[in-house]
Amino acid sequence: MYIILVYDMKQQRVGKMLKLCRRYLHWIQNSVFEGEISEVKLAELLAKARTIMEEEEDSLILFKSRTQQWLEKQVVGRERSALDTIL
Amino acid sequence: MYIILVYDMKQQRVGKMLKLCRRYLHWIQNSVFEGEISEVKLAELLAKARTIMEEEEDSLILFKSRTQQWLEKQVVGRERSALDTIL
Repeated sequence: MYIILVYDMKQQRVGKMLKLCRRYLHWIQNSVFEGEISEVKLAELLAKARTIMEEEEDSLILFKSRTQQWLEKQVVGRERSALDTIL
Repeated sequence: MYIILVYDMKQQRVGKMLKLCRRYLHWIQNSVFEGEISEVKLAELLAKARTIMEEEEDSLILFKSRTQQWLEKQVVGRERSALDTIL
């Protein structure tokens, strides 16, 4: 399955969430990730995300698609560089 | 067409972009929007977005799908409240 994940977290928890999501998905923009992932891996990611999040304050939204082909992506402006993805 | 729009802007331009995007789409999270939009309206939105953006610094990513049915949305944590959408 192909997913897009976006989160909105309090600043003090952003670093942990970023690190977690990058273990499962591709980072494409500040707080936005995409990638192919299995149901099992996604459940694992969400379980870990819930331990980082304060569910009253933070928010995570997933868009799931059976296949990436059903989505066309368009980038306007700056593309995240290789350097950014290392940082 | 159904789209998801996410942007990453310098702070001083965020307000203008938010206001623009809310005229065309539904605001679902900090810097994330979704909604049905025609090709014509999307072209109009992007033309206006480009006048706000500094393309060297800012980034806007669109995911387009022919139909919303191809995407399943899941929200974890806080849902944006009615109050938030008024502000």
